[in-house]
Amino acid sequence: MLRSALRFAPSRLCNQVGAQRLAATSIRAGFPRFSKSLGSESRSYQTTTPLAHATPLTSEKYPQLKRNPSFKQLTTDDVQHFRTTLPPECLLYAASEQDVHELTGYNTDWMGKYRGQSRLVLRPKTTDQVSAILKYCHDQRLAVVPQGGNTGLVGGSVPVFDEVVVSLDKMNQVRSFDDLSGVLVCDAGCVLESLDNYVAEHNHMMPLDLGAKGSCHIGGNISTNAGGIRYLRYGSLHGSVLGLEVVLPNGTVLNNLSTLRKDSTGYDLKQLFIGAEGTLGIVTGVSITTPPRPVAQTVAVLGVETYEDVQRVFKLARQNLNEILSAYEFWDNPSMDMVLHHAGDNARHPLAQAYPFYVLVETSGFNKEHDDEKMGQFLEIAMEKGHVKDGVLSENASQMATFWYLRETISEAAVKTGPTYKYDVSIPVPQLYNLVLDTRERLTQAGLYKDDKSGYPVKKVTGYGHVGDGNLHLNVIAEEYTAEVSQALEPYVYEWVEGHRGSISAEHGLGLMKAPHLYHSKSEAMIQTMQSVKHMFDPHGIMNPYKFLP
Amino acid sequence: MLRSALRFAPSRLCNQVGAQRLAATSIRAGFPRFSKSLGSESRSYQTTTPLAHATPLTSEKYPQLKRNPSFKQLTTDDVQHFRTTLPPECLLYAASEQDVHELTGYNTDWMGKYRGQSRLVLRPKTTDQVSAILKYCHDQRLAVVPQGGNTGLVGGSVPVFDEVVVSLDKMNQVRSFDDLSGVLVCDAGCVLESLDNYVAEHNHMMPLDLGAKGSCHIGGNISTNAGGIRYLRYGSLHGSVLGLEVVLPNGTVLNNLSTLRKDSTGYDLKQLFIGAEGTLGIVTGVSITTPPRPVAQTVAVLGVETYEDVQRVFKLARQNLNEILSAYEFWDNPSMDMVLHHAGDNARHPLAQAYPFYVLVETSGFNKEHDDEKMGQFLEIAMEKGHVKDGVLSENASQMATFWYLRETISEAAVKTGPTYKYDVSIPVPQLYNLVLDTRERLTQAGLYKDDKSGYPVKKVTGYGHVGDGNLHLNVIAEEYTAEVSQALEPYVYEWVEGHRGSISAEHGLGLMKAPHLYHSKSEAMIQTMQSVKHMFDPHGIMNPYKFLP
Repeated sequence: MLRSALRFAPSRLCNQVGAQRLAATSIRAGFPRFSKSLGSESRSYQTTTPLAHATPLTSEKYPQLKRNPSFKQLTTDDVQHFRTTLPPECLLYAASEQDVHELTGYNTDWMGKYRGQSRLVLRPKTTDQVSAILKYCHDQRLAVVPQGGNTGLVGGSVPVFDEVVVSLDKMNQVRSFDDLSGVLVCDAGCVLESLDNYVAEHNHMMPLDLGAKGSCHIGGNISTNAGGIRYLRYGSLHGSVLGLEVVLPNGTVLNNLSTLRKDSTGYDLKQLFIGAEGTLGIVTGVSITTPPRPVAQTVAVLGVETYEDVQRVFKLARQNLNEILSAYEFWDNPSMDMVLHHAGDNARHPLAQAYPFYVLVETSGFNKEHDDEKMGQFLEIAMEKGHVKDGVLSENASQMATFWYLRETISEAAVKTGPTYKYDVSIPVPQLYNLVLDTRERLTQAGLYKDDKSGYPVKKVTGYGHVGDGNLHLNVIAEEYTAEVSQALEPYVYEWVEGHRGSISAEHGLGLMKAPHLYHSKSEAMIQTMQSVKHMFDPHGIMNPYKFLP
Repeated sequence: MLRSALRFAPSRLCNQVGAQRLAATSIRAGFPRFSKSLGSESRSYQTTTPLAHATPLTSEKYPQLKRNPSFKQLTTDDVQHFRTTLPPECLLYAASEQDVHELTGYNTDWMGKYRGQSRLVLRPKTTDQVSAILKYCHDQRLAVVPQGGNTGLVGGSVPVFDEVVVSLDKMNQVRSFDDLSGVLVCDAGCVLESLDNYVAEHNHMMPLDLGAKGSCHIGGNISTNAGGIRYLRYGSLHGSVLGLEVVLPNGTVLNNLSTLRKDSTGYDLKQLFIGAEGTLGIVTGVSITTPPRPVAQTVAVLGVETYEDVQRVFKLARQNLNEILSAYEFWDNPSMDMVLHHAGDNARHPLAQAYPFYVLVETSGFNKEHDDEKMGQFLEIAMEKGHVKDGVLSENASQMATFWYLRETISEAAVKTGPTYKYDVSIPVPQLYNLVLDTRERLTQAGLYKDDKSGYPVKKVTGYGHVGDGNLHLNVIAEEYTAEVSQALEPYVYEWVEGHRGSISAEHGLGLMKAPHLYHSKSEAMIQTMQSVKHMFDPHGIMNPYKFLP
């Protein structure tokens, strides 16, 4: 009965050491260790496309998409131009149809849902090279797809047809770091986890963290306005990014790598590129403020009976943990099942029995004694009120990592379970989980799904996400991507979100997937203004075409 | 020896109650009480221009400024149009030259530095009225100045020539507030302090606070990207504003009043209007996230010998107070002298003797015992190391208010001391105060100033500001505004800031004052792009002309 860690009488809760000692017994020896926050080993998250070989061409899957004839077809002269202006290691070219498969990693998205047909991948090492590439493409009307770690989930980072891929993976240097202010300046191609490890040496941490951290680039994070698990505490990139270096489509370099916390000199242009998904230019450099790295962290995983209790526990967490609350995540039991199934020996259920919902609460602070006392009070109240049925509390970094593993591996586990329709939406917290319930019901009514049973086109309908931010990830895992399932889900999901005054994309962006559905979240006047902005920066429309805007 | 509050041996610092009791004796009975954070009485800050009667016309003071002849002169037909489309109380018109003085409050800035000649002030009550006004002005080429609380410091909120003033002061309703998420939606004309009082009833607080809070509008805060004293803890408006309703120059209403914490659906257009100073349209509605209101706050005022020690104490504050540190302000002794002189019976020196520098440290949290312990540890270390020579610690809200009064009244005290050249700049923290020293030296060399003595054109050169944000306010207080002093200060100050990789405007914006100097902080490519943005939104250039961009 290891869950008794949280099942003691209130009078015992003052003894935090005891509470944690009990909790510790819930951790099975031999759990995988991850680099989560305080550890040092690398995480198992892979960006290798699990289903790459099975991915159909985007152009065949979506026949309504037509190549824009105003874009030039790549010629051998173009390739020769790049060969003469870039070092040989910065260019990958598939001369024949057969060679195209060598570029599969650049043409196919991580989900195995989208596959383009680019034959040219450029991997510049400097901002000047990026500038020269874009100027040439702009003059020649060659369409371009900027690519970071290619961990996006909406088809935004791979070509649709024959666009030239400009990968930032060779621009991965830290340019400067200031210990006093915590301001980091780096290339856009730096991997998020590498940056986090780098600033950790100086007792700071990146203000964002997400499952793909081992592969995603900071430039991609910025271009998709990534959220992640630290958002609750450290807020939006619109607040933490201090400056950007951006190459505009015509090759102009906008150098605005300010390291100042405050700057009110003119329109804050950098904001336009945060979340622009590479449609206005290529982010090449980043200045970002990094907060001091907490010295005390604790993670609890709690078993909860209802979504109403998930909300009640959230309210209690905010009231009792306040400034040390750094994450409040939830997932449902089908999500837990998938993770445990695919983790194999790497993980097991942290509680004695299954619950309909699980909540992960993390505190981060600088005084362990104070923080433990606050966590203890919070858990005591949540248990006493009956909103939490069972739980475990971490005692060290390794245990925290095992708890986070359960939450962070859901996305990967879903994709391994089957082709996954992923929806990342913002919804006012009280209605959040209703989308999962209503979607299940709709698919059941349509005869496409029944109670996680086999033999139906849809295997599972799961929900998880960042409750504290009103951000739900709805995953519908199918036997295969089919028009029948697609049509049952879309525009249904988007209409549902619109009807509940939500956003059809909370943190994954629009990409190819959601571009046509933007009107569910933005007015005609807003979209027209966006189109004017796009036209102003990119009059030939060469940057990441077919995506983002309808 | 009331300062002994902080002068005890380390062993005594564990007893926080004792520390505070000692500190309490430093507070003189009868100090003014302000509404600072936890109080309820209104603040004495006045926006009545202290020197309004003496303010020369901007057009005469800056003869190089020429009225743009493409703007239509206001006709009686125009006035008649507005009379027929707006309720009578929404229009103020000066039919004759003599009547113009009745509009002085709308034509003159708070500093008494800029005075325009508008004869028409429109005060719409609804977004639709704003839309109709702008559409008419756009079609008729009538230039417009949007105006909030008119507390700006760079001449951005008053006309230069005969522009029509559109005041938001009649749009001052809260539209909604959500207790669970803390999201407030309101009209742009709401006064910041009124909003703070409103959300305080729901245990939340506005994420920004500044000296002008009793008069400034939230729309003006957003349009100037206001910073203020909570910036260190709660960050930029670019992070906390969730949505805006904006009327574009052609009358189009961009409704993006999202209440969602996360939304990645297209370019984040609202960001362009944050800090645009009304040059792209008029902000009419605001959605903003408000943090939970702390239940425990403490303020310490410390006497410090050198600016190096100001930095050392800052570092210690960050290390020891971390997530509960909510403000770290500093001011120099000449600033303190001005405040005490003008406060009269309202304030007296909090320490036993004068020091070259004063630091104000504020903590805000949710567990008084924990926070007091942290504050005690911080002060103990700072005193032990000798970086702090003396200090007082607040024991209640009233005392906190008296301490804040010293810091927040500096700006007003300066203007009462004499015509003030105000510079609001960002500079890397280590060099911050050197600007004050170098400016003093330069004015001394020029024979314009000597050691605060009378008989010189410049009375005082003072520095204060938000050390934690690298934000200095340099105030040069003169006998009168003269070309001689101006020329000694500009472009010198801007060049100095540029040479130290700072920003010529940290939180006050550009307005009329700094528009010509923007190139000291932004590159040619950045400024050109800004001009393209301006032209896209406002092709006729009617919005707040002559300002913001060079």
